[in-house]
Amino acid sequence: MSTELSDSGVVDLGEFEFECGRSIDNLQIAYESYGEFDGENCVLACHALTGSQHVARVARSESAEQSDEPRATGAAPTAGQARAWWDNVVGPGKAIDTNEYYVVCANVPGSCYGSSGPASDGPDGEPWGTDFPPVTVADWTEAQRRLLDHLGVGRLHAVVGGSVGGQNALDWAKRRPDDVRRVAAVATAARLDAQCLGLNAVARRAIRGDPNWQRGDYYGTGEEPTQGLALARQIGHLMYLSKDSMGDKFGRRAAGRDAGSDAFPADPAGAFFPYRDVESYLDYQSEKFTDRFDANSYLYLTRAMDDYDLSEGYESDAAAVSAFTGEALVMSFTGDWHFTVEQSEALAEAFRESDVPVAHHVVESDHGHDAFLVEPEHVGPPLRDFLADGVAGKSVTDTVEHEEDDRQYHAPVHSSLFSG
Amino acid sequence: MSTELSDSGVVDLGEFEFECGRSIDNLQIAYESYGEFDGENCVLACHALTGSQHVARVARSESAEQSDEPRATGAAPTAGQARAWWDNVVGPGKAIDTNEYYVVCANVPGSCYGSSGPASDGPDGEPWGTDFPPVTVADWTEAQRRLLDHLGVGRLHAVVGGSVGGQNALDWAKRRPDDVRRVAAVATAARLDAQCLGLNAVARRAIRGDPNWQRGDYYGTGEEPTQGLALARQIGHLMYLSKDSMGDKFGRRAAGRDAGSDAFPADPAGAFFPYRDVESYLDYQSEKFTDRFDANSYLYLTRAMDDYDLSEGYESDAAAVSAFTGEALVMSFTGDWHFTVEQSEALAEAFRESDVPVAHHVVESDHGHDAFLVEPEHVGPPLRDFLADGVAGKSVTDTVEHEEDDRQYHAPVHSSLFSG
Repeated sequence: MSTELSDSGVVDLGEFEFECGRSIDNLQIAYESYGEFDGENCVLACHALTGSQHVARVARSESAEQSDEPRATGAAPTAGQARAWWDNVVGPGKAIDTNEYYVVCANVPGSCYGSSGPASDGPDGEPWGTDFPPVTVADWTEAQRRLLDHLGVGRLHAVVGGSVGGQNALDWAKRRPDDVRRVAAVATAARLDAQCLGLNAVARRAIRGDPNWQRGDYYGTGEEPTQGLALARQIGHLMYLSKDSMGDKFGRRAAGRDAGSDAFPADPAGAFFPYRDVESYLDYQSEKFTDRFDANSYLYLTRAMDDYDLSEGYESDAAAVSAFTGEALVMSFTGDWHFTVEQSEALAEAFRESDVPVAHHVVESDHGHDAFLVEPEHVGPPLRDFLADGVAGKSVTDTVEHEEDDRQYHAPVHSSLFSG
Repeated sequence: MSTELSDSGVVDLGEFEFECGRSIDNLQIAYESYGEFDGENCVLACHALTGSQHVARVARSESAEQSDEPRATGAAPTAGQARAWWDNVVGPGKAIDTNEYYVVCANVPGSCYGSSGPASDGPDGEPWGTDFPPVTVADWTEAQRRLLDHLGVGRLHAVVGGSVGGQNALDWAKRRPDDVRRVAAVATAARLDAQCLGLNAVARRAIRGDPNWQRGDYYGTGEEPTQGLALARQIGHLMYLSKDSMGDKFGRRAAGRDAGSDAFPADPAGAFFPYRDVESYLDYQSEKFTDRFDANSYLYLTRAMDDYDLSEGYESDAAAVSAFTGEALVMSFTGDWHFTVEQSEALAEAFRESDVPVAHHVVESDHGHDAFLVEPEHVGPPLRDFLADGVAGKSVTDTVEHEEDDRQYHAPVHSSLFSG
């Protein structure tokens, strides 16, 4: 059964002031919604760094005029994560059941799938480029709030997001604590650590160091910073995979063909050595990516991710979520070195300190950070049950053992990963 | 007490056939030696990827005509690892004691500190560029063998090396098993895993994708692939540091100044966000590096590292070292994700399978791969004792518990990290 797209499009939200203090006259937000709104059942899904509003595959017959793939502003047709990035989790009868919930997903400001960003036109009718105001995760939350107002949605049943989308979800608990009943922060953390900050910084340098970047004004010049963006994506991709999964998937195997990419000049002396599977995979993935994503958006969105710090403006992470009256699910993956299990546990601890009912559900997985996208069988059940029953949901596990007579909520009893 | 440089220079070794089948008329090898040769006491030190022959700081007074820093072919004065890369381990009274041992270190073919490589002049008097034959670790071993013949050294007391220098040391046990009494392979592995292969491939792309690379023929053009090389180094640098050490060293702190590097164009919208310590550090390190290292050499030497596979030509790693009649020390560091403790244990197991006396000495360290360069207090004692007494050396520990009545050699008893 395919998902019914109940609505989609680009909404003019009017003047919008960004956290940096600058305003634009008309913030446009591209979104999709699935299922029917009953006044209580809205679930906001927050996409990851390079995702789009297109969270679920839609029935062709019911969206004849609607392409199944959003098109990046000024870019080629989309693929990869922009192509129904959570289709295995969101849909009729799936974990986030569109027969039950009204699911909304918005492309964040600064991205390139129809929402205002560096690739969209500025007041002079030319693409903004790097004149577009810097964006933060707080701007995403406020833009989503404005979109939901436009759609007639008040309090949300839940906000669910993975990776930087998980930070977006956390930001709702902090910034709009009364507006959401349940927050699920998947494969994320209260903030990036130094290693990930370093990797993102190098990725941005790869883009900025590409002469075709032209300080961000490459639109319409016929020369785009494709090489730099491909490198940035390859660095990102390596962050999303675990050492073990790469070993299993690629090993040291030769790809069985020569390096075919025209994107990178050949290395004559390199021809003596095999073009390896891992290299071939990274090349293929980055080629697909540069077709679908805008280099300036990559700069903007990684900056927003780097900048995010749950505790900003508060004394601690716990203080930042203390006004939140709902329940929280933190989900982490053992093979994820981008956002670690330890970081998720610290996040869960912050909720506990503020007496917010929380469960930290740890998934054993070799799939690295990508696990939240590729293991629906492990991600789906706890999400489904959390949406239905909060932290008492039957598939929801926690890292903390709750004494029978001492528990404030009904999380299943599990031995602690951390108290031992 | 400073180290006495007993000899140094560039030796013409005549015609040399590389593993790839190509020959050059005259392989030149730059080397340094310290201490006096007594016929039995030669220790060959093998440098890491971007190191040089300059392993120890030399006494100024005794080397008036000799600069303390080798100069990269056609490059600015050297710094960083090329500047006496193991001075805290090699010298009079130090772990590799130059009062006791005759220490030789040679710059590997393909590098840029005086040995033949892409930056040195080819037959036409112009730099080889990527016409220089591809090099492998086997070529390094054979070039070192030829240099030692020239110096009058037959059997080595020991070969010691870290990182790809450790693979070079392992290659001696495999390729020249009768020529060396003791092999110490530090922070290394029998082969790179898929994750490191991927990271190296991206680093090479950064160089090849720099328009100034000019397919390797940039010498004398006034335009060098500095941006690409800087990116490659930054990726490498991130591989050498552990997540924990980066967190401790940099956290999320702002650098307290604006991005000062002219090497990378500014990102106007990025000015809203802090220039962080971690970024500043990576920028500073990569600027130093591009002053001292040749981009083509970076391509050549990472290719050699990627290519190295101890088992190549044999059925297994154990078979590859089965002809080795000496003793082996494998040393690894718990925070090293470039070359892991598990990889070192597999390596030790290969020696055990072939009944080669071996100890796997694990150092608890947060310093990542860099630990072998920056923790002389932990690296020095087991090396010193291994050179003196082999695996029975008193500071040498092993991961395997040896029963008193069952041990073939006298490694100290330690509880196993792995058999539990």
